[in-house]
Amino acid sequence: MSESTQRKVAAIIGGGVIGGGWAARFLLNGWDVKVYDPDPQAERKLSEVLANARRSLPGLYDEVLPVEGKMTLHTEIEEAVQGASWVQESVPERLDIKLAVYPKIQAALSEEAVLASSTSGFKPSELAEGALRPGQILVAHPYNPVYLLPLVEIVQHPDSDPAVIQSAMDIATSIGMKPVLIKKEIDAHIGDRLLEAVWRESLWLVKDDYATTEEIDDIIRYSFGLRWAQMGMFETYRIAGGEAGMGHFIAQFAPALQWPWTKLTDVPELDETLVNKIVEQSDNQSGQYGIRQLERQRDDNLVAILRAIKGRGWGAGKLLLEDDARLRGAEQSGAIDWSQPFVSAHRTVPVDWTDWNGHMNEARYLDVFSNACDKLLAALGCTPDYVEAGHSFFTVENIIQHIDEAHAGDTVRVESQIIDAEGKRLHLFHRMLGEDGREIATGEQMLIHVSLETRRSAMPVEPVASIMAAAVEKQKHLARPDILKAGK
Amino acid sequence: MSESTQRKVAAIIGGGVIGGGWAARFLLNGWDVKVYDPDPQAERKLSEVLANARRSLPGLYDEVLPVEGKMTLHTEIEEAVQGASWVQESVPERLDIKLAVYPKIQAALSEEAVLASSTSGFKPSELAEGALRPGQILVAHPYNPVYLLPLVEIVQHPDSDPAVIQSAMDIATSIGMKPVLIKKEIDAHIGDRLLEAVWRESLWLVKDDYATTEEIDDIIRYSFGLRWAQMGMFETYRIAGGEAGMGHFIAQFAPALQWPWTKLTDVPELDETLVNKIVEQSDNQSGQYGIRQLERQRDDNLVAILRAIKGRGWGAGKLLLEDDARLRGAEQSGAIDWSQPFVSAHRTVPVDWTDWNGHMNEARYLDVFSNACDKLLAALGCTPDYVEAGHSFFTVENIIQHIDEAHAGDTVRVESQIIDAEGKRLHLFHRMLGEDGREIATGEQMLIHVSLETRRSAMPVEPVASIMAAAVEKQKHLARPDILKAGK
Repeated sequence: MSESTQRKVAAIIGGGVIGGGWAARFLLNGWDVKVYDPDPQAERKLSEVLANARRSLPGLYDEVLPVEGKMTLHTEIEEAVQGASWVQESVPERLDIKLAVYPKIQAALSEEAVLASSTSGFKPSELAEGALRPGQILVAHPYNPVYLLPLVEIVQHPDSDPAVIQSAMDIATSIGMKPVLIKKEIDAHIGDRLLEAVWRESLWLVKDDYATTEEIDDIIRYSFGLRWAQMGMFETYRIAGGEAGMGHFIAQFAPALQWPWTKLTDVPELDETLVNKIVEQSDNQSGQYGIRQLERQRDDNLVAILRAIKGRGWGAGKLLLEDDARLRGAEQSGAIDWSQPFVSAHRTVPVDWTDWNGHMNEARYLDVFSNACDKLLAALGCTPDYVEAGHSFFTVENIIQHIDEAHAGDTVRVESQIIDAEGKRLHLFHRMLGEDGREIATGEQMLIHVSLETRRSAMPVEPVASIMAAAVEKQKHLARPDILKAGK
Repeated sequence: MSESTQRKVAAIIGGGVIGGGWAARFLLNGWDVKVYDPDPQAERKLSEVLANARRSLPGLYDEVLPVEGKMTLHTEIEEAVQGASWVQESVPERLDIKLAVYPKIQAALSEEAVLASSTSGFKPSELAEGALRPGQILVAHPYNPVYLLPLVEIVQHPDSDPAVIQSAMDIATSIGMKPVLIKKEIDAHIGDRLLEAVWRESLWLVKDDYATTEEIDDIIRYSFGLRWAQMGMFETYRIAGGEAGMGHFIAQFAPALQWPWTKLTDVPELDETLVNKIVEQSDNQSGQYGIRQLERQRDDNLVAILRAIKGRGWGAGKLLLEDDARLRGAEQSGAIDWSQPFVSAHRTVPVDWTDWNGHMNEARYLDVFSNACDKLLAALGCTPDYVEAGHSFFTVENIIQHIDEAHAGDTVRVESQIIDAEGKRLHLFHRMLGEDGREIATGEQMLIHVSLETRRSAMPVEPVASIMAAAVEKQKHLARPDILKAGK
């Protein structure tokens, strides 16, 4: 990992929960961040969001993130936006306040930069009205917590500059987000319109005592919330339509649309009685947790869910796999020098790997070593194509020695050595090290090359046979670890 | 595990996707199931749902489910419901069809049994109107896939029999569901009203070309779908309100309710143009997958997400932990006979544990052995209370030998032996066996007793010291495994 001399710069105008989330996402992806926020509490608030992001985001990846950028606070908008390739405006949701900051931003901002608003409700054309360069202004609407949830709605308006829109899409992707381009602007974009519909209906249900806030939350999270985390609504209903397809599903459920299943046509008045009822029910439901505690619980849950879906290579998890490939590409460039131990892992311990002893659970060490082994095997030519062709390695023995503890948030590095590769046998040794070089654990693996057809041992074929032979030869001069036990 | 002589019986009236899901959930939880469905394709359809359930549900648990019940098909309703403690009606969503089956059911059904409808839209009072025993009829509205999603809305009506309602809540819990009692009936209950709101708004967005079905799904699954899978809506917004709380959140967002963010006041006409547009967009989005493929992908995703959130002990995952405790309780009764190897695991390999070699990934073996170790330690007195008091064991070495392959859906059993317990050291040996007794792998663990305060080795205290000493003594006569390597 090399610290780039020309760091990219993002400017954050308004450093609340949303602005802070943007700041954290840019910083942890290696950008420098310049913040403008007149609130005297801004620095404290930012540091709280940043602390949450630092403990949760890096562990989503199986690769290490770039070196964190630097954050500076500024008292003038013009100063904050100088040199920025992305400006994110997250000031309060009032059009007059928003329109007051754009002239100051554009006066000092380069023409190619992205100037994006976090607004939930305003259309980009409303924000661009009368601007110095309307084409530069767009909406980039994220979801809280911004540092963990990948979605950003990139909304264009009729006068948008296509180059700026493209740049926004590219940059969002490069910081681990999933940009969805909304080509035709609409009040509240897409996601918040859906949320608004559910929120409105829920308010009625609570007001009229059909359900409490806790019952509604349970109904969501034990049922369609789980469906929506991975397939959304239309794909879910496509399955419900079965072999007969989407048209069949619609035909089946169309009549219900006309039934009186909703009070959405009316808006409940949020009078004191209703507000108090919601506050009281919410206290009963979640009052035993502080907000910081709930935030961390939410983040831990999201990390666990995102990592789980990553294991399936689906939806938000597929995005994480693509990010891993990008991060790996940035770290590994050039040919492998087999005369040195192979760096087979460089990653951060996720928050959900902690056990009741307060440290990384023993089983996760084998997760790390097993992934490290896969990466080493890929470097030896045992790629998905090789496996697809029916050749692979099966592990016959694993020995893990625990030397020191690792904790959530620790960055660890695995150096792997080929001890021996004789015929069908491959003998590996992994050393897990902390960032300070301390030895945390060692893993020894004995593998056997197999035919996936017979599922029995078989000689390696090309290109693995040649690459492996050359690599073993070059590794021979390395000191042999003295705690070898495998392959007695 | 003992097969009960008096199995519980559920009757399924209508064996489509929903009825089949209910059948699968009851069967896999050890109930016998009697199905009435005049469709000549019923048996094939049921077997397809059941196959999906068998491959995905058992792996949600870290304990083995009861021995599967027996399913029989019946041509008469009266015959199907005889002896049933739960009847689930899932016939087509038309009131006249539903009302026609209730008299036949109640004529042959015991008075204490639960008579539940899967209806999405009808209120239980509409179904109970003019019934022989109206108090017995209720709504038990599940979510597809019924065998994986835990939620069931139990809806009562003014004349409901409280004993039947209580029985419905208890039985639903006993088959791994999360029953939420809707005390005041309303059209479409709670969940479907929320879904209807989003569906209606989405139809407008698609019709007016603001977004495609795929964009809407992406917007859901990369953002609030992930939030809703674990906290629902109100608890999420509570966090958004920050320290200022729920009242602050409402005050901040209340004005938006009055804004024109929605077309929910109108119902879009589902004419041919709109239906075709949705069908075409859905084909573009998901047409590359068959329905069976999508179902399995969905189930694998749900298993991975549910197991992830189980690791956090939160929401639907907390429910799974409670189910594990219940299953463990059913299997382990009476005092531990330490003269025999300790059965430290009996569980099914989850679908998301498979790696590119098409078998259970090596890292998962240590998951199994590590959990087995925790269970053995708990039996030795190292319980959550003991750990809370600052005492625990840390693993210093793990040796795993792979002998045979294990695959998703295999039920495995771990027998653990205490090789030695001397002072602070504890030496364990685990043998993983298939249901047919074949040896799949062995795991050897060397642990050291520690003080969690100093995080250094320390002598075990009571009750662990005494239980462990007695257990070791009783295990001494067991054959010592000959592949010992740890603790050289």
